[in-house]
Amino acid sequence: MSQDEIPFTALVRSLPATVPFVGPEAIERHRGRTFAARIGANESAFGVSPKAAAAMREAVGRVSWYGDPESFDLRQALAAKHGVAMDEICVGGGIDELLGLVVRMTVTPGTAVVTSLGAYPTFNYHVAGFGGRLVAVPYVEDREDPASLLAAVTTEGAPLVYLANPDNPMGTWQEASAVADLIAALPSGCLLVLDEAYIEFAPEGLAPPIDTGDPRVIRMRTFSKAHGMAGARIGYAIAHRELITGLNKIRNHFGLNRIAQAGALASLGDSNFVAQVAARVEDGRQDTYALAARLGLQAIPSATNFVAIDVGSGERATSILQALQEEGVFIRRPGVAPLDRCIRVTVGTPEDRALFAAAFEKVLASVPT
Amino acid sequence: MSQDEIPFTALVRSLPATVPFVGPEAIERHRGRTFAARIGANESAFGVSPKAAAAMREAVGRVSWYGDPESFDLRQALAAKHGVAMDEICVGGGIDELLGLVVRMTVTPGTAVVTSLGAYPTFNYHVAGFGGRLVAVPYVEDREDPASLLAAVTTEGAPLVYLANPDNPMGTWQEASAVADLIAALPSGCLLVLDEAYIEFAPEGLAPPIDTGDPRVIRMRTFSKAHGMAGARIGYAIAHRELITGLNKIRNHFGLNRIAQAGALASLGDSNFVAQVAARVEDGRQDTYALAARLGLQAIPSATNFVAIDVGSGERATSILQALQEEGVFIRRPGVAPLDRCIRVTVGTPEDRALFAAAFEKVLASVPT
Repeated sequence: MSQDEIPFTALVRSLPATVPFVGPEAIERHRGRTFAARIGANESAFGVSPKAAAAMREAVGRVSWYGDPESFDLRQALAAKHGVAMDEICVGGGIDELLGLVVRMTVTPGTAVVTSLGAYPTFNYHVAGFGGRLVAVPYVEDREDPASLLAAVTTEGAPLVYLANPDNPMGTWQEASAVADLIAALPSGCLLVLDEAYIEFAPEGLAPPIDTGDPRVIRMRTFSKAHGMAGARIGYAIAHRELITGLNKIRNHFGLNRIAQAGALASLGDSNFVAQVAARVEDGRQDTYALAARLGLQAIPSATNFVAIDVGSGERATSILQALQEEGVFIRRPGVAPLDRCIRVTVGTPEDRALFAAAFEKVLASVPT
Repeated sequence: MSQDEIPFTALVRSLPATVPFVGPEAIERHRGRTFAARIGANESAFGVSPKAAAAMREAVGRVSWYGDPESFDLRQALAAKHGVAMDEICVGGGIDELLGLVVRMTVTPGTAVVTSLGAYPTFNYHVAGFGGRLVAVPYVEDREDPASLLAAVTTEGAPLVYLANPDNPMGTWQEASAVADLIAALPSGCLLVLDEAYIEFAPEGLAPPIDTGDPRVIRMRTFSKAHGMAGARIGYAIAHRELITGLNKIRNHFGLNRIAQAGALASLGDSNFVAQVAARVEDGRQDTYALAARLGLQAIPSATNFVAIDVGSGERATSILQALQEEGVFIRRPGVAPLDRCIRVTVGTPEDRALFAAAFEKVLASVPT
């Protein structure tokens, strides 16, 4: 009996056995010790709302029960927050899961899908996983470029296009008007995934108004970043109700963790907490800009909880990343040129930042330019 | 702008907007009050291991970090428990998520998939969701029938077949030798999903030995039932490493809840707890058999944490189910004839059982035969 006889689809058989990201735990296992500063995955260094923590600990008492498959209470609170109807919201296991569902809902083998070259790899992973043909347009001055995205959508007749605002991995952003203009210019039959995972860290007014009457856009939000709940896996999509109906046709209805639902609902009720986190992240960004300037490097201004620092070349960024690992500091870097001339550093606690500053200065001295 | 212009795939457009199960919360919202006894979804009435509860409450402190995408510690413990290699295990968000991945990995539109008529609806939901053509063979004397499954596999040239042992919704079971014989007889190129969600409640020796050298079978286990962690969403697949590689090509790598991972690992280390739960479930089954006998009804002997009770007809089962809801008791019933002549009652706490017994006796008196 041979594994060649496993009845994989042709598509799955053709996929590479690669993953978008290697987790920090895997690197720690390889190195044989844990990181002193885990500032590579844009996880919040400022924890979770005390109200959310209490709600999650409390929810452990009923973990024998499935979570509500409709996430009713959470969707009700989210609908009130965003001024939309409950059936214009779908809650999922983080934006990653929702991205997979959106791709599954719109992509068959060969479908063209437009994104930016070097943008969020997990979106690309899902596109590949459903056989889509990825069309990636270059960043312009370290920013995703709506004009290029729109041109590619038109040229390719693509039904799906991805834009993160603010962007990951560069931390740059579009003005709300630029995003609104892109949406307005999208041809009918094209869907924009507008990934706003980092929106709470951005200046006020960066998100265009939510218009669920327009079936050309699906907004993605998450509790993983400003709410500090990455490990809970909970995010949501806001869109025209027909799009949400599509997600409901294929999603894993009983897939949501009950503790995560309780935590998200409680965190939503603690907006002061998120505002405080955003303020602390702004302090950390300023620290990081100042550090880069002191070291003679350019930091890319960021509207997120991370900062990309230009270190001159992809080769040097890789060397620095590896040397930082030896110093007990976990960071990441963009995967594709020309973005890969940067390292990407999550805003950590003041202690994390001090560790990073010392390690980075040490490492820079030893890594050739 | 019309929703007709949403770029759904033809498959998703064709899917019905139905769900495999309505959650008890939705019924409670409709009724305007909560159930006094929630004994319909085969959730454990006996809670979670104190060690698991402590581990989950502790894990809330690090919920800002993503869970390990490799679930290394948990897979290591599971591999040791089952005597397999770590790369022969895939951890997922409950068996439901893993079933979806297995279907995605093997089914394209039109692919024949074999199951039993009335077996687990969520498997069928995934098959429909990927465009598979479901071929359902009848139960024989309230048990799934390996001979019929095998015959359908052969006739249809089906690459995928589903068997739950013990079965849901009837609670019946196959001897290990019958399952082993089915596997041995499967044609090369056919994969059996052997769903053992309820195996901890079954008599010793019901599970055939695990043989990960055989790529024709993938075993499914869960923390949702005997471990009492349905709300955590964590289950796993055991299979030939090439099958696990297939899952790893498409799964949502950072999709697992960190708190659930910690809880599962702790629960795995508390085997006494699971044994105690199984003993309490056996007490409850005996109670339920005795109740049925006292009421002049036949209970189907069960190897699970629920009991199907024959009430004569699908119409009567529906009436009883609805009348029990009015009494504050949530149960379910099989969806398809002839299984639907039964109600399906999860083994509850002694208090749940007393509530059910009183309500059931009352309801029976008023519902026509």
